[in-house]
Amino acid sequence: MSHTTDVVIIGSGPVGLFAIFECGMLKLDCHVIDALDSIGGQCAALYPEKPIYDIPAHPQVTGADLIHNLEQQILPFKPTFHLGQQVTTIEQLDNEGKSWKIITSKGTEIRCKSIIIAAGVGAFGPNRPPLDGIETYEGSTVQYYIKNREAYRNKNVVIAGGGDSAVDWAISLSEIASRVSVVHRRPKFRAAPESEARLNDLAQQGVIDLVTPYQLDSLKGDSRNLHAVTVKSMDGETKDIEADYLLPFFGLSMNLGPIAEWGLGMDKSHIQVDHLTSATNRAGVYAIGDVATYPHKLKLILTGFAEGAQAAHSIRRFLYPEEVIHFEYSTTKGVPSKAA
Amino acid sequence: MSHTTDVVIIGSGPVGLFAIFECGMLKLDCHVIDALDSIGGQCAALYPEKPIYDIPAHPQVTGADLIHNLEQQILPFKPTFHLGQQVTTIEQLDNEGKSWKIITSKGTEIRCKSIIIAAGVGAFGPNRPPLDGIETYEGSTVQYYIKNREAYRNKNVVIAGGGDSAVDWAISLSEIASRVSVVHRRPKFRAAPESEARLNDLAQQGVIDLVTPYQLDSLKGDSRNLHAVTVKSMDGETKDIEADYLLPFFGLSMNLGPIAEWGLGMDKSHIQVDHLTSATNRAGVYAIGDVATYPHKLKLILTGFAEGAQAAHSIRRFLYPEEVIHFEYSTTKGVPSKAA
Repeated sequence: MSHTTDVVIIGSGPVGLFAIFECGMLKLDCHVIDALDSIGGQCAALYPEKPIYDIPAHPQVTGADLIHNLEQQILPFKPTFHLGQQVTTIEQLDNEGKSWKIITSKGTEIRCKSIIIAAGVGAFGPNRPPLDGIETYEGSTVQYYIKNREAYRNKNVVIAGGGDSAVDWAISLSEIASRVSVVHRRPKFRAAPESEARLNDLAQQGVIDLVTPYQLDSLKGDSRNLHAVTVKSMDGETKDIEADYLLPFFGLSMNLGPIAEWGLGMDKSHIQVDHLTSATNRAGVYAIGDVATYPHKLKLILTGFAEGAQAAHSIRRFLYPEEVIHFEYSTTKGVPSKAA
Repeated sequence: MSHTTDVVIIGSGPVGLFAIFECGMLKLDCHVIDALDSIGGQCAALYPEKPIYDIPAHPQVTGADLIHNLEQQILPFKPTFHLGQQVTTIEQLDNEGKSWKIITSKGTEIRCKSIIIAAGVGAFGPNRPPLDGIETYEGSTVQYYIKNREAYRNKNVVIAGGGDSAVDWAISLSEIASRVSVVHRRPKFRAAPESEARLNDLAQQGVIDLVTPYQLDSLKGDSRNLHAVTVKSMDGETKDIEADYLLPFFGLSMNLGPIAEWGLGMDKSHIQVDHLTSATNRAGVYAIGDVATYPHKLKLILTGFAEGAQAAHSIRRFLYPEEVIHFEYSTTKGVPSKAA
């Protein structure tokens, strides 16, 4: 599938979404690519219900509402989203940096004039334990997020991990599951002291099985339905735990992926930009939001919004240097659909 | 009246208000000074009902609602406002720029550690015609804004000016006033063609008196109640127009006032700042929003919000250079009143 547009935005978190608005105000069409299956980035995927207090003129807004409002705001500009895929290669087609070809992991090909990277911390997802064949169980009996607590009622549940998520879910699911086992490679957990005390109480009462110090070894089942989780002690002894579900809670991985190999000036996992233009060291490529860095950078969503405005104006100047921008304030003319 | 605080913010428009929030998150208390009698700057005074489309995550918001939301957002930080007064002098009390004395036109004295100038276009107000003794009539029979249209029913109203405000109000008030006269120094008006055509129609019908080309010369009355407005033709001939009210519509003046004389690096009527810190050339003095300039500056409210965050962090670093800021994201801890 091949597309053509003005600007490709990599990342559909709040900062990437608002950049669509700013590009649209300057008559630059956008296509947006995101590794996740839905827009909104971390706000939508990790803390949709959590209140955020520092978005200007929103005394309190949840991650989900923030994304919903931005979605409404960009509607008039009809952006095209390519979700569930990562950019694998970018290829510069001219000498100036005004013509690019982008290819994604799903084979989507987009030609564009400029690129805005709004990738946040990069593509993120759960850390997956390295177990043979685990991918065939994922989404059915191996789950990294709890979407529906009731699914575990009267089931044998194995939880793996030693942090807050592992401990809190063990306590919570012990109320409804048939059996909850917690596999952790150390006897000590890294959870809030109160939660850990509660976990140990429940273990003493025989409500929860603490399988420590053990680690995951392999899965037994028919490649979709899990039957047992095999665990291994530090000295190599193995045993099976009967299991309908395995819930590994090993935190999130965050990974810039191929972006780090595009010849951009980097500072650890951040892209260096000129704070006055949001431009990277490659002409035609801009970076905004948490992925972009410069001296005294503040990693705030509102800072990313302002950087998006800056990038859109920089692109307009770069692509059309002869043009005098009659910059029409939205307060005067409204967005295009209203002015039309 | 003498006060002490961490930061004095000059200007209570949206950018000045949001700077209170960002300072508050870093435990910096603020006092705010504004020339107008109420907070909100131009948003509240000039276009409270006008929809704004480019505030992030607000698909559409009026000036009044924007200010209302910001007011709610800063409530936990309990800022002190000094309204209806302009800063007349600032005095540096130390060598470093960490101790300042500010005096306002009402004699308010504030000692502070840092100053943020968020003055927009400066203090703004109606252009006043240079007529002897006009100030004694202002607020009663000489009015620059229409607050209550009904006040003019069955009255003799003299409108001065040639723009949209003069023409539109002449047409509107001609429906209820006893007599409407429009004084303009040229025969031609600078209003929307439709409105001007309507004005000329009403003049031909004898409903409105066009007094052109004439200009205001003097006022007759008892220093509060107006009796007549004296106008003068281009060749010096004068005549009196019977008048209960004079409504001069000569546009707004915008004036940075004494700020321009504080030794700050200026670029026309803007203050030059370092875009990475919002710092002016005077240590301890910062500028944000429309009054601040740097290469490729965008005069957007959202840009001013981000500059406010930057200024607050710059001040914290400047005042407490030894301190490691454990910057707590509001998403984690909420604002102080909620965390407390």
